Amino acid sequence: MSLNPEMSTRHMGYMWITEWISPKEAHMHGLEKIYFEGRTKYQHVVIAKTFAFGDALFLDGYVQSTEADEFIYHEALVHPAMLAHPSPRRVAVIGGGEGATLREVLRHPTVERAVMVDIDGELIELVKKYMEKWHRGSFDDPRVELRIEDGRRFLEEAEPGSFDVIVLDLTDPAEGTPGVKLYTKEFYQAVYRALSPDGVAVTQATSTRYNLFMYAIIRNTMASVFPHVRPYKAFIPAFLSEWGFMLASKGRDPLLPREEVERRLPSGLRFLDAETYKCLFTLPKHVKEALESEKRISTDANPATIY
Amino acid sequence: MSLNPEMSTRHMGYMWITEWISPKEAHMHGLEKIYFEGRTKYQHVVIAKTFAFGDALFLDGYVQSTEADEFIYHEALVHPAMLAHPSPRRVAVIGGGEGATLREVLRHPTVERAVMVDIDGELIELVKKYMEKWHRGSFDDPRVELRIEDGRRFLEEAEPGSFDVIVLDLTDPAEGTPGVKLYTKEFYQAVYRALSPDGVAVTQATSTRYNLFMYAIIRNTMASVFPHVRPYKAFIPAFLSEWGFMLASKGRDPLLPREEVERRLPSGLRFLDAETYKCLFTLPKHVKEALESEKRISTDANPATIY
Amino acid sequence: MSLNPEMSTRHMGYMWITEWISPKEAHMHGLEKIYFEGRTKYQHVVIAKTFAFGDALFLDGYVQSTEADEFIYHEALVHPAMLAHPSPRRVAVIGGGEGATLREVLRHPTVERAVMVDIDGELIELVKKYMEKWHRGSFDDPRVELRIEDGRRFLEEAEPGSFDVIVLDLTDPAEGTPGVKLYTKEFYQAVYRALSPDGVAVTQATSTRYNLFMYAIIRNTMASVFPHVRPYKAFIPAFLSEWGFMLASKGRDPLLPREEVERRLPSGLRFLDAETYKCLFTLPKHVKEALESEKRISTDANPATIY
Amino acid sequence: MSLNPEMSTRHMGYMWITEWISPKEAHMHGLEKIYFEGRTKYQHVVIAKTFAFGDALFLDGYVQSTEADEFIYHEALVHPAMLAHPSPRRVAVIGGGEGATLREVLRHPTVERAVMVDIDGELIELVKKYMEKWHRGSFDDPRVELRIEDGRRFLEEAEPGSFDVIVLDLTDPAEGTPGVKLYTKEFYQAVYRALSPDGVAVTQATSTRYNLFMYAIIRNTMASVFPHVRPYKAFIPAFLSEWGFMLASKGRDPLLPREEVERRLPSGLRFLDAETYKCLFTLPKHVKEALESEKRISTDANPATIY
Repeated sequence: MSLNPEMSTRHMGYMWITEWISPKEAHMHGLEKIYFEGRTKYQHVVIAKTFAFGDALFLDGYVQSTEADEFIYHEALVHPAMLAHPSPRRVAVIGGGEGATLREVLRHPTVERAVMVDIDGELIELVKKYMEKWHRGSFDDPRVELRIEDGRRFLEEAEPGSFDVIVLDLTDPAEGTPGVKLYTKEFYQAVYRALSPDGVAVTQATSTRYNLFMYAIIRNTMASVFPHVRPYKAFIPAFLSEWGFMLASKGRDPLLPREEVERRLPSGLRFLDAETYKCLFTLPKHVKEALESEKRISTDANPATIY
Repeated sequence: MSLNPEMSTRHMGYMWITEWISPKEAHMHGLEKIYFEGRTKYQHVVIAKTFAFGDALFLDGYVQSTEADEFIYHEALVHPAMLAHPSPRRVAVIGGGEGATLREVLRHPTVERAVMVDIDGELIELVKKYMEKWHRGSFDDPRVELRIEDGRRFLEEAEPGSFDVIVLDLTDPAEGTPGVKLYTKEFYQAVYRALSPDGVAVTQATSTRYNLFMYAIIRNTMASVFPHVRPYKAFIPAFLSEWGFMLASKGRDPLLPREEVERRLPSGLRFLDAETYKCLFTLPKHVKEALESEKRISTDANPATIY
Repeated sequence: MSLNPEMSTRHMGYMWITEWISPKEAHMHGLEKIYFEGRTKYQHVVIAKTFAFGDALFLDGYVQSTEADEFIYHEALVHPAMLAHPSPRRVAVIGGGEGATLREVLRHPTVERAVMVDIDGELIELVKKYMEKWHRGSFDDPRVELRIEDGRRFLEEAEPGSFDVIVLDLTDPAEGTPGVKLYTKEFYQAVYRALSPDGVAVTQATSTRYNLFMYAIIRNTMASVFPHVRPYKAFIPAFLSEWGFMLASKGRDPLLPREEVERRLPSGLRFLDAETYKCLFTLPKHVKEALESEKRISTDANPATIY
Repeated sequence: MSLNPEMSTRHMGYMWITEWISPKEAHMHGLEKIYFEGRTKYQHVVIAKTFAFGDALFLDGYVQSTEADEFIYHEALVHPAMLAHPSPRRVAVIGGGEGATLREVLRHPTVERAVMVDIDGELIELVKKYMEKWHRGSFDDPRVELRIEDGRRFLEEAEPGSFDVIVLDLTDPAEGTPGVKLYTKEFYQAVYRALSPDGVAVTQATSTRYNLFMYAIIRNTMASVFPHVRPYKAFIPAFLSEWGFMLASKGRDPLLPREEVERRLPSGLRFLDAETYKCLFTLPKHVKEALESEKRISTDANPATIY
């Protein structure tokens, strides 16, 4: 009565998070270990070890970042903006609960003050407890001020010109979620106001694959407020996608020549170098064409959303 | 930019346990809340709230019992055996970590002593903490003795004739797991020895649907040791199956006439009454025929297993 | 560079139909072979070989019957009604596209005429081509008349008293589907009218597990029209459930004593015998209690539906 | 009895192909329409319309290319090799069943003869029938010779120096499949022999994400035969990955300066332009480091495989 290996289910994953890209497409993450599962006031949180990507944070069923590739996301999000400003001293991070955005900001020796504003204080406590691989002590850096409050209101009430760089590390503008109001023209006007004259802002900008229309709308919306906007992207394995980012500047064109990038890129990076920096801003033909054909912008009155 | 409900994924489950019935069939349980996930010395444990069945215990990825229907499983497992003995005073439960088998045993007022033997003490501690709906304090009953040790060795070393009823509430005999040796002829010989002259044993006996061959082998194996063996089944929703049980007796035929069942069934049951009792033992034609065609038995030297 | 069997995906199923029991529970059927996939005027049809249940018919993503267990469903649906009538000569089958309901009806030698009414002629053609295991030539029996038309209208326009037995082999009353109007009081009034004075009707009645409220409503609704209604159930593995049926009679109580069942059951059955017949009508305590607590009925104006 | 939209399953996909990236990670493709499902002598074929990527070809459960993004894969595979040769006249395509590799080759006006060698003639017939969007008549081009035979034997028996460019459009080297022998040193020696003195070869080289070790081994193995080898990658959405390619040349360095690329890139491309060309060859830091740390090569005697 020997084993038929064709029937064995022993090595098949059985604990999963299914990311629904649509009701008809999904990515199934097998889980090895669940560190935390629960609900904060704002969202459902799972912190787990996945088989494919190591530790990972899921909010409302969608992966936010993973041990295996968070360095790509966070280096791509932070450094182009930090370089675009000649000497960033005062930085605001809106969102960015994992603390890894802060970690990358703090690599820049010009930084004197980094204010992180996240609405979900319970999440931050969980991150401090379970996600040391991400923040690596950044919350304890003396330059850091952590504020638990609404990011939009914080920027609206900030002294004009308070920040050199503002990093928007937000959840997606999913229909019916508070994130929607963090991608509108009115929001970007508040960002603009809060920036110094040569200030720079950057936002994650959803997927260039399955939310390409949204990527384009974010570009259009920022471009209705800022004189310079540069779309870029980086391939993030856990997001299954070349992920979108949008870089906006009040002063000079934020896309820098290679020499300046080489000179100013902080050391210790794992993903980004000057060659790859250039390619972040090199969009494939079909993405450029899709950007050109989309004309809509997102406003508080008529916000754009994804599902 | 309004919502297309066809694209909404908001109400779709995303935290799952997939029970692999084979590498080509599965039951997906959406999870609402995870109370505990971790590994004891013996097995991987998930205690979670499922959307469909309420709270549930999963061992190594397979559901053991659920809040919604554990009463069916435990009433069906325990009472036919308890009734089959004229006056059960000394009862052993092998396995049965949830404490619900004990709970049903203790409904019988003749019981003076109930020894529960489970190898996994860590699991018992988790059950005490998270599964009060199952045990309802049974572990604290003064008649109960809880022993954390190997069930087979316990029976092999027990004084002959020590128990009136032995309830075998075990995990399946899955290839490569310790459960395999709890379904062999040699094991049932130890059970037989440990029983009093009119003693009764009952075991869960896997699925009459997807492991019908195993159900038949368990019947054959018990029948090679006991003079009376009665196969029966009950539909357990969370198991997707009419689940198999096997009732064996050293003395009289364990299938009782209706009047005795009616007279002796304890009160407070939710599933079982005298009419349903009769139907547990009424197998559909095709199951009877499958039982007749299987001739193998399971032995320590050549144990039968499932995957 | 040898194989790590822990990483092999070779024997894992990859072609699936997922039956969504709810957005948070599913049954995944691995497919071995797809015989037909396409859309008729009325529904989406897949006829495929599943690994677990052999050939199977899926309509709009839900299994209708499978090679492995269709005999259970069709024997349970047909014979209790056929026996309940003393001498069924004229039979109507509403729905029943696979032709297996017809096959079971035709086992009864008293039958002189069997009218099958199905709205989906394209489906019938597919069944004739791909599902010979089901119909086994029943469509060619000289007693059979096949009509492609709306079943409700057929009954409404039938001569009163035209049929001795009416078998309602329908898709579920899922919100927004035409099936809904085949479970209302007005529909059962048409059934009643079309039956002879000792006429008998039977309907499939959804799952006693996940649609128990609907099962009860169907009982209530039929009981608002017929003097005798008997709920029953049979475990159908591919439906993961003890499946509900409802037997209604204009004349005598349709639940027969064992002797009559034994005498009149046709030969050649694989599931049903007189003992099992009795148990079909034996509902577990908790199902009986659920039936008692539900008071609603379904009407054309306010129809009951499932999802 | 109105609809609870939270319970609706109506818009959820139910017909799927699950691509197992490992036993613990998967990509689920919802299918809208199945054009063909069946087995050729060599492989299991599904040609279907997916909801997310349009029409797609799956071999043995893995997507080969999709309507939505095949242009990325095929442009990335073909044009760097075609450009690397100063004037490609004679081209061999090994594999490439969809005919789209041929389509891209034929864009180059210098091509006088294109031999496509695929072992699976039944697959080619299916492609001709169902995948016109891919081949667009390429099989009928007078320059094309289609040969149904073993690609490795074809190259081993070819006249030395027969081809200017050889495009290896193969299935992955999965353990136990014939593809394994198309990635070994001995195979690349046959490729080398069959090329003219300034000949160029290119191969798909598995995923730079989940098979990065294999990508590196292919690089090492080619570099043990060819003087110049350039790894590159392109993000292919349906493959969830920056996909790997390997470009090898007998003559000059195959990575060209921008001006030559601009001058010689054929018109009508949707993905590739001179800027993107440059970025194909720009690997992120962590991929470069992984390439450097892997030293193994694949040989017939000890072939490297994935699962």
